[in-house]
Amino acid sequence: MSSSIGQNLKISIFGQSHSEAIGVVIDGLPPAEEINLDEVMSFMARRAPGRNNLSTPRKETDTPEILSGLKNGKTCGAPLCAIIRNTNTRSSDYNNLIDVPRPSHADYPAFIKYKGENDVSGGGHFSGRLTAPLCFAGACAKQILKRRGITTGVHIYQIGNSLDDSLCMESISEELLDKIAEKDFPVINDKKGEEMKKEILKAKEELDSVGGIVECCVLSVPAGIGDPMFDGIENKISQIVFGIPAVRGIEFGAGFEAARMRGSEHNDSYYYDENGNIRTKTNNAGGILGGISTGMPIVFKVAFKPTPSIGKKQDSVSLENKTNSVLEIKGRHDPCIVHRAAVCVEAAAAIAILDMMC
Amino acid sequence: MSSSIGQNLKISIFGQSHSEAIGVVIDGLPPAEEINLDEVMSFMARRAPGRNNLSTPRKETDTPEILSGLKNGKTCGAPLCAIIRNTNTRSSDYNNLIDVPRPSHADYPAFIKYKGENDVSGGGHFSGRLTAPLCFAGACAKQILKRRGITTGVHIYQIGNSLDDSLCMESISEELLDKIAEKDFPVINDKKGEEMKKEILKAKEELDSVGGIVECCVLSVPAGIGDPMFDGIENKISQIVFGIPAVRGIEFGAGFEAARMRGSEHNDSYYYDENGNIRTKTNNAGGILGGISTGMPIVFKVAFKPTPSIGKKQDSVSLENKTNSVLEIKGRHDPCIVHRAAVCVEAAAAIAILDMMC
Amino acid sequence: MSSSIGQNLKISIFGQSHSEAIGVVIDGLPPAEEINLDEVMSFMARRAPGRNNLSTPRKETDTPEILSGLKNGKTCGAPLCAIIRNTNTRSSDYNNLIDVPRPSHADYPAFIKYKGENDVSGGGHFSGRLTAPLCFAGACAKQILKRRGITTGVHIYQIGNSLDDSLCMESISEELLDKIAEKDFPVINDKKGEEMKKEILKAKEELDSVGGIVECCVLSVPAGIGDPMFDGIENKISQIVFGIPAVRGIEFGAGFEAARMRGSEHNDSYYYDENGNIRTKTNNAGGILGGISTGMPIVFKVAFKPTPSIGKKQDSVSLENKTNSVLEIKGRHDPCIVHRAAVCVEAAAAIAILDMMC
Amino acid sequence: MSSSIGQNLKISIFGQSHSEAIGVVIDGLPPAEEINLDEVMSFMARRAPGRNNLSTPRKETDTPEILSGLKNGKTCGAPLCAIIRNTNTRSSDYNNLIDVPRPSHADYPAFIKYKGENDVSGGGHFSGRLTAPLCFAGACAKQILKRRGITTGVHIYQIGNSLDDSLCMESISEELLDKIAEKDFPVINDKKGEEMKKEILKAKEELDSVGGIVECCVLSVPAGIGDPMFDGIENKISQIVFGIPAVRGIEFGAGFEAARMRGSEHNDSYYYDENGNIRTKTNNAGGILGGISTGMPIVFKVAFKPTPSIGKKQDSVSLENKTNSVLEIKGRHDPCIVHRAAVCVEAAAAIAILDMMC
Repeated sequence: MSSSIGQNLKISIFGQSHSEAIGVVIDGLPPAEEINLDEVMSFMARRAPGRNNLSTPRKETDTPEILSGLKNGKTCGAPLCAIIRNTNTRSSDYNNLIDVPRPSHADYPAFIKYKGENDVSGGGHFSGRLTAPLCFAGACAKQILKRRGITTGVHIYQIGNSLDDSLCMESISEELLDKIAEKDFPVINDKKGEEMKKEILKAKEELDSVGGIVECCVLSVPAGIGDPMFDGIENKISQIVFGIPAVRGIEFGAGFEAARMRGSEHNDSYYYDENGNIRTKTNNAGGILGGISTGMPIVFKVAFKPTPSIGKKQDSVSLENKTNSVLEIKGRHDPCIVHRAAVCVEAAAAIAILDMMC
Repeated sequence: MSSSIGQNLKISIFGQSHSEAIGVVIDGLPPAEEINLDEVMSFMARRAPGRNNLSTPRKETDTPEILSGLKNGKTCGAPLCAIIRNTNTRSSDYNNLIDVPRPSHADYPAFIKYKGENDVSGGGHFSGRLTAPLCFAGACAKQILKRRGITTGVHIYQIGNSLDDSLCMESISEELLDKIAEKDFPVINDKKGEEMKKEILKAKEELDSVGGIVECCVLSVPAGIGDPMFDGIENKISQIVFGIPAVRGIEFGAGFEAARMRGSEHNDSYYYDENGNIRTKTNNAGGILGGISTGMPIVFKVAFKPTPSIGKKQDSVSLENKTNSVLEIKGRHDPCIVHRAAVCVEAAAAIAILDMMC
Repeated sequence: MSSSIGQNLKISIFGQSHSEAIGVVIDGLPPAEEINLDEVMSFMARRAPGRNNLSTPRKETDTPEILSGLKNGKTCGAPLCAIIRNTNTRSSDYNNLIDVPRPSHADYPAFIKYKGENDVSGGGHFSGRLTAPLCFAGACAKQILKRRGITTGVHIYQIGNSLDDSLCMESISEELLDKIAEKDFPVINDKKGEEMKKEILKAKEELDSVGGIVECCVLSVPAGIGDPMFDGIENKISQIVFGIPAVRGIEFGAGFEAARMRGSEHNDSYYYDENGNIRTKTNNAGGILGGISTGMPIVFKVAFKPTPSIGKKQDSVSLENKTNSVLEIKGRHDPCIVHRAAVCVEAAAAIAILDMMC
Repeated sequence: MSSSIGQNLKISIFGQSHSEAIGVVIDGLPPAEEINLDEVMSFMARRAPGRNNLSTPRKETDTPEILSGLKNGKTCGAPLCAIIRNTNTRSSDYNNLIDVPRPSHADYPAFIKYKGENDVSGGGHFSGRLTAPLCFAGACAKQILKRRGITTGVHIYQIGNSLDDSLCMESISEELLDKIAEKDFPVINDKKGEEMKKEILKAKEELDSVGGIVECCVLSVPAGIGDPMFDGIENKISQIVFGIPAVRGIEFGAGFEAARMRGSEHNDSYYYDENGNIRTKTNNAGGILGGISTGMPIVFKVAFKPTPSIGKKQDSVSLENKTNSVLEIKGRHDPCIVHRAAVCVEAAAAIAILDMMC
């Protein structure tokens, strides 16, 4: 009723930050597809904590264990289940959160919804840690899409007030996307990446946090994929993307900027290219019209709020005493999760597109 | 596979712009709920074309006919089906569209997807006209929510470069929302509304169109509604909202602006109000944390692209001749659909929230 | 939440026996498929009331009106909606049913579920009349399957204690199924059909009713269709078949008889036929193993209870007075619905199989 | 796409007979419900292999490991995942099955569907072993239902030609159902149970197998649960029950016997009992009318085919050589699975009913 999604490719995510394990069941993977686990690990490593001083010092090896669904390294038609053990948990950090909900975390609404029995430790089922199994599923989807000529990629578009170069239509290529994916800090322009890192470190020093924007694209999706109205590409991608903690908005193509534009400026003119393929001169549509792919790159941006867990003291309430209260959060937290979340957005896109192509 | 949505409250929309009729089946409405058809008509009138010189001159009475689901004016548990006849169709306007797809319309991807058999007239199933049955369903949902103390409302936030006042937390009230709903042009500040209208008329004169942003809110949703991960309030609302033609983005609470913010600035502190209720001092969360309602107003914005049908000549291709081609669109079109689409966004919100509360 | 079904081919049925209209929305039909409406009418005529003295004297032309989804007689990708007006309603027949629920009808549980606001007239949404739109959808599915070489068919297997010949593996053929479909009373052996009719007329004379069994088969479904566990062919067909009023059981292949059998007797041995195709010597599996088609005919039986509406006086209760009460049902009723329901079972099979092959 | 089911209570089953582990994710369990793991183990022990000489000698401890979803022994709102390691696998037994499909097993259709990459060992995902996680989920559902006053129970109704006493309306009670559940061989009448065992042992001696029928009931479900048409109690239970391997049919209440009955005989008359509750004198409806519970016991029967794995030589084909072939199955198999499958049917019922009551 919450953590399952997909129609032809169904994923069901489980686990809490400090439960025995977290994991995912992927049902409906096409059969006879090789899953390269080294590539899966590389993909997952892009969101792993503890790579540098920009993230939480919590370290987990995050090695997924495959319980089912593969036979001789290939998908065998049975649901694939992968789990990741939670080994480095410090639940005592969270003791006072049961009573005093952290501002802008799910603690309070979860307390109401689950009658006070929700697992608060590490954020429980609401933890960003739950994106690890999402990335596992995304890594599998990415490999299968790759085999069909489709490439997914992502970069940090913005941290605080620092912007990366734009993934303009001219520059998007498989090579560029692969190159960004190999970077520790996934931006197009590394100089701008340094500015972003400074913003993060400055926030960290001030016991604060900062938000950002991720830009994702999917290349070479053939025209005609997706459905009208409620099962369009935007609907499908959005439904998964809003499953990533801290996401506050999503926009496709020109997005919110389209609000300021004239039709004559926003419309993407068609033409035949030298190979006789229909293309558009611009791509304000972000590769989607009427929910269906146009054959142009699918491009969208996702906004992340600043991490709600900050070291500064904050006003909150004591649920037990029914009084106002002051909260000082301890534990290990990220001053920014955008650079780690980028790959999660790519995972969401890969899962959504493969679901529509199964 | 496209035009059905919802879990407990399921809606299935059908029809093309120029088919015999358009309509909706609503399955799962709570029983014994009175549906006031005059109120439904008033709600639907807010999106009806032809109210002033800002919209298409196509006029339709758009009176829904109830085929099932009501008994003595109350929901009887059976699916409610309402249809609206298409009476004022001029399909000949669309003859050349079969060959030359309109830029930034669904014509081309639909041609590929449906093997050239898609109904092009008036945009077929992709027409904005299909939001009439969505509004019918939304009007029913709104009435039922109202009976539970929940109010939905909407205003135009932006047209081109003109902005309305903001629905800041202090000003939101049931009265304000109801007052805006009665306006021909739904803004908070009518002076700013006049500027917006000027932008629309200017675009119209120049045979062009313009985009905009709609802001929607839902008041008095109790804390604890919604589910984590993929069935959160954002996921549910997004999946419906992207079913409205021309939507390019959605953001909740502080949305994309959150990317620039610090955690200490963005976090919404809790406090007990004078009645002993937990509230937050700010509402950057837009009333949602972890996908679940906090009890604060649910607030989100939706970006609309400029109407793709413009009078200016545009570059396109001839699918039959496989050559580049120039297109001049005739027919009746809106220079802006934002003021008409506002109520559709409210409908989407009402449907999503009622689905989660059924 | 009740009257929608299907994954790739989604159908949503609406209407009550005495509402303005009944109908169906079919979402996900493959595009560019011609729908021959004469054939649809012929298919639907097989369940129509009033064909002879074996059925209710209520007469309806039951001509479906297509509201959407077709363009030049072909599916255009948009959801297909067809409605049938209810023209010959006599709601006054049902006045006392609001208070005194008919034994073995849905009146009482519906009264509880819908807080007394359910539409009792003619059985409301629970009426057998709702199988007309199911048959409409089935007729479309049958035509599309036919174009792919797949044939659906059905016969009355049993009425009361009278049995038809069996659809044994040797005799099943497209020709036989088509021939049965043309009969007023769809049996293989017309002599046995006469005996069945006598049983029905005898029940009718005695102001009583009688049950029966329908056998359905689907020929030439290729091996490999269907999914394991909960999305197998049996699961899919069952979920639709139990949507037909009065169904009490379903069995595939040897069915309940398999309980008495030994494995050595029940197992279907494989062999290569003269064309190099794998087939089985027997077909106790009814063409399904592990939920997946084997390439052999899919065969199943469906049990129908005797029509609950009988002329005889029956014991019931007065919901208002909270006392025991005696009920005498008036209105127009069928002494047996099996011969009319046979085609509904075929419709269910066609919809289920096409859904799995879309 | 296969192994997930449920609407409010969603279960997703994974694993193969010889994969690392099998398991289940249960999403949507009501929060704050205690799950007694000893009771879960007792429930699961009722299907465990190796309890006596009637079953496969394969022994597994089948101790589930809870990975998530519980906090201090109570459901915390997060999906509950439980896994069971496969420790006692002998895959070499299955080597020749890759080429020569076992009659009446899923080997051949799975080979076609999964392009020859299906996991054949132990039946892979089609193994009866996958009912262990189903029983885990059923055990949780049963505990929660119990807390709401609802009792599930089951007995072996028939093995080959031996029948147990019937669960007639007079005799059904919570006590009786609990007493049967404690038996090694779950029948009402132990003498008849001995006859059944003899049938099983006789089949075993002859290197053969035998089928049977299970009868299940659910007591004290309040009237008004379930939905019309496709989401009725029968539809929901069927969809899960056909997920149990070897099931060939299901019937509710009088079931197939209803085909022979007159309406006057089959109809269940209403009356007020001494406590002012509406009840029926008979229960041919099996507690369900129009898909909705009547308040009477829900009763249904499920037919199981004889185990397809038998020691006798059988005719089959070599997929590689494309020739006819003879198969002699080795490995450890059950001469009858009905006594082990009974509890799986109860699990299916518990899951379906709780899903409808969440």
